Amino acid sequence: MAAIPDAARDLLDGAPLAHAVTINPDGSPQVSCVWVERDGDELVIASLGEWQKVRNLRRDRRIVLSFEGSGANPVGMQDYLVIHGVARIEPGGAPEALQRMAERYVGPGVTFPPMPNPPPGHLIRVRVDRVGGSGPWISA
Amino acid sequence: MAAIPDAARDLLDGAPLAHAVTINPDGSPQVSCVWVERDGDELVIASLGEWQKVRNLRRDRRIVLSFEGSGANPVGMQDYLVIHGVARIEPGGAPEALQRMAERYVGPGVTFPPMPNPPPGHLIRVRVDRVGGSGPWISA
Repeated sequence: MAAIPDAARDLLDGAPLAHAVTINPDGSPQVSCVWVERDGDELVIASLGEWQKVRNLRRDRRIVLSFEGSGANPVGMQDYLVIHGVARIEPGGAPEALQRMAERYVGPGVTFPPMPNPPPGHLIRVRVDRVGGSGPWISA
Repeated sequence: MAAIPDAARDLLDGAPLAHAVTINPDGSPQVSCVWVERDGDELVIASLGEWQKVRNLRRDRRIVLSFEGSGANPVGMQDYLVIHGVARIEPGGAPEALQRMAERYVGPGVTFPPMPNPPPGHLIRVRVDRVGGSGPWISA
């Protein structure tokens, strides 16, 4: 398990879209964009349904999350953060987590999910193993 | 081979960062962010070196490219475009392609790559097989 560097925490605690990559049964990558919540050195994704990424993670726990930063390197290439981790899936808690995230990602006061009686869903908890990409979160 | 929908062309012809996913020898996903150039219904990535994604694609040609859109759906989740494709690698042409892309991604008049006598590198040409994600490029 790796600590999340301070510069990466700053990015994650904003509202960056996570490009979440899991592995399909045929070995091809599955990508969907999701919201994330940082819980110390773990990242949490909430899923209301048993979507492909959840099914994939039950079979192969490896996950990569990629985020765009706001800065750029000296030659003008935009910063990005890549988190390599291993996921565990916990039942329940998705509506509450999505409501907290929606306050950051959509705006204060929003009600999310936008449905009565949402299903409990799952939380995908990602233990961070390695931090990569290009930006202030990479040691020189 | 799939045609790229007009709404996706509009996004790609701007300067969207591509989260490029290839498959490592151990089956894990490799992600790096790159610039892209659209050539009709193909996407082109330029690589000056024999980086991991190039080595991966020589072994397994599957690639997924994920992009953030500027819009959002009615409940406030940001649009994104996912391109599933198959890559072929052509030797040479990387400095010229990067120079063209830098005019879009960095700004008009920039000189790129920022080095004298850059190596010829490779072009990664992606044939699009499927378009996914969430946004106006997905048929209702």
